[in-house]
Amino acid sequence: MTQENRQWRLARRPVGMVQERDFALHREPIPTPSDGQVLVRTRWLAFEPAMRGWIEDRPNYIPPVPIGDVMRGMAVGEVVESKLDGYAPGDRVTGMLGWQEWAIGDAGLRVLPPDTDPRIALSVFGITGLTAYFGLLDIGQPKAGDVVVVSGAAGATGSVVGQIAKRKDCRVIGIAGGAEKCAWLTDKAHFDAAIDYKAENVGERLDVLCPDGVDVFFDNVGGPILDAVLARIALHARIVVCGAISAYNAEERPPGPRNYYRIVAQRGRMQGFVVIDYLSRAAEAMKDLATWVAEGHITWEADVQQGFENVPKTLLRLYSGQNFGKQLLEL
Amino acid sequence: MTQENRQWRLARRPVGMVQERDFALHREPIPTPSDGQVLVRTRWLAFEPAMRGWIEDRPNYIPPVPIGDVMRGMAVGEVVESKLDGYAPGDRVTGMLGWQEWAIGDAGLRVLPPDTDPRIALSVFGITGLTAYFGLLDIGQPKAGDVVVVSGAAGATGSVVGQIAKRKDCRVIGIAGGAEKCAWLTDKAHFDAAIDYKAENVGERLDVLCPDGVDVFFDNVGGPILDAVLARIALHARIVVCGAISAYNAEERPPGPRNYYRIVAQRGRMQGFVVIDYLSRAAEAMKDLATWVAEGHITWEADVQQGFENVPKTLLRLYSGQNFGKQLLEL
Repeated sequence: MTQENRQWRLARRPVGMVQERDFALHREPIPTPSDGQVLVRTRWLAFEPAMRGWIEDRPNYIPPVPIGDVMRGMAVGEVVESKLDGYAPGDRVTGMLGWQEWAIGDAGLRVLPPDTDPRIALSVFGITGLTAYFGLLDIGQPKAGDVVVVSGAAGATGSVVGQIAKRKDCRVIGIAGGAEKCAWLTDKAHFDAAIDYKAENVGERLDVLCPDGVDVFFDNVGGPILDAVLARIALHARIVVCGAISAYNAEERPPGPRNYYRIVAQRGRMQGFVVIDYLSRAAEAMKDLATWVAEGHITWEADVQQGFENVPKTLLRLYSGQNFGKQLLEL
Repeated sequence: MTQENRQWRLARRPVGMVQERDFALHREPIPTPSDGQVLVRTRWLAFEPAMRGWIEDRPNYIPPVPIGDVMRGMAVGEVVESKLDGYAPGDRVTGMLGWQEWAIGDAGLRVLPPDTDPRIALSVFGITGLTAYFGLLDIGQPKAGDVVVVSGAAGATGSVVGQIAKRKDCRVIGIAGGAEKCAWLTDKAHFDAAIDYKAENVGERLDVLCPDGVDVFFDNVGGPILDAVLARIALHARIVVCGAISAYNAEERPPGPRNYYRIVAQRGRMQGFVVIDYLSRAAEAMKDLATWVAEGHITWEADVQQGFENVPKTLLRLYSGQNFGKQLLEL
């Protein structure tokens, strides 16, 4: 066991595409828990596209990670020492441990059942699953028979969104990059159709696949894909604005959706949300998600990288679309 | 009395800024009403920014005016001959008579009380008032104390929106072009503040006037003004998308709002609507609007042009911002 705590700290604010050198490896002694705290050994790290926004100094839903601080991030770890009731050495816990091998935690950490697969704890049964569940059901409000389109559909959130929509008897079309991802969407995740935006014209394919328009669009991507869908929304369409990964690393903020005005004639609604507003309702989502996973309605993938030294590099995989399913790293 | 019916017909689809020559003057015999119809002499025509959309061959909330047809338009007229129960010669009526001196109407026309001022019938008590009322109250859902910002604030719809918001105890900021319009907003329409977008930086002025952000934005304009407001929305902001006059005459659709993504962090909502969906609830709006006008809570202006030959020219006034209040023409 290493006798020091390695950390990835934010070295500087990225300009344009985030780079490995925006983070710096730092070593410090392993911390000691005080009363009411636990010492946790980090085992798995989870990566989210939203991280690009966390390291930017712009108004956002959480304060930016200060330069010089350990990078914020969800993780699964193991309690090594506990001065906190209800937490015992050996317990598996999940929470915002950050990009470090050892972390001090408190009652904000959630203890996982001993047999939990960390990969599902950090995806379908984590923030990702909650985002998909509440974003689709609360904001998108799909009804049986609706056409639901999902961008970033082979990503961790998008794939769960589409499978929940299928469970709600919608017709589901996923947009993803590459034949392999698209085949997975239709063959494994049981989407009704998939569009490979790298090889196909999204608008033309939508015209064929849903000539009566799109009732719910769950957007993780923004950019030209958002515009292609806006041009084809049905009456009273709901556009769930979850992400805009196509724009996160732009040096200058790109133009917005020129077809936004279609929401007038179509009486549409574009709405944003942040999953932390729904944490108090997590149990309700987890119950449904657990049922659907157990029943085989939700399948999932994880892209697992290895080695603490590869942490910043692993984040970059999200923005080049290299990941397939939830991006994780095992320490 | 002229013995012919002069009409302005759509001659061609405009490219870029609509021009007088996009319409052609046509003469035909005065029509004869059949059973169930009335013959109406047009007295007042009303002009709406939305007309630019009606003459374009793009998907919209109503079919485009066909080339060669009389231009669609709201009007007030006088019944000259009636073969319809409930309509008598001399009655003042309002409805979609179109750009012509004589029109055949049916039970779709509404008879006005004899003492009605046609200028208010075609503005506050017409489609304009309904648009303001339902757009603000149903879509914008202002609460007492909210900061409500209105673009195109000295226009017919915007001025009513702001005054309804004041009646609902909101803090109201209007954005308009020119010192005269801005003075009218604060002095006559009792807005809390006005921003002259032609002379001032809208974003900087909003930072001063509402440092805690914008709760409701009623947008008639789009473009850079929409972006300036989106950058400053408060938590749970509602953006009522009513119009985008800045873009109606663009040859190529301009870029959309690059700050649309602020609705994520701010849990905001952009929503479009079309007033015709609310026609069945018109009585409810008219009751409130009549009360507020009688109580002095709503004041209004009309820009009245004269002469049937000037009809197309009068429409153009809307897109150069020459009008002050509701754009009308008296025949």
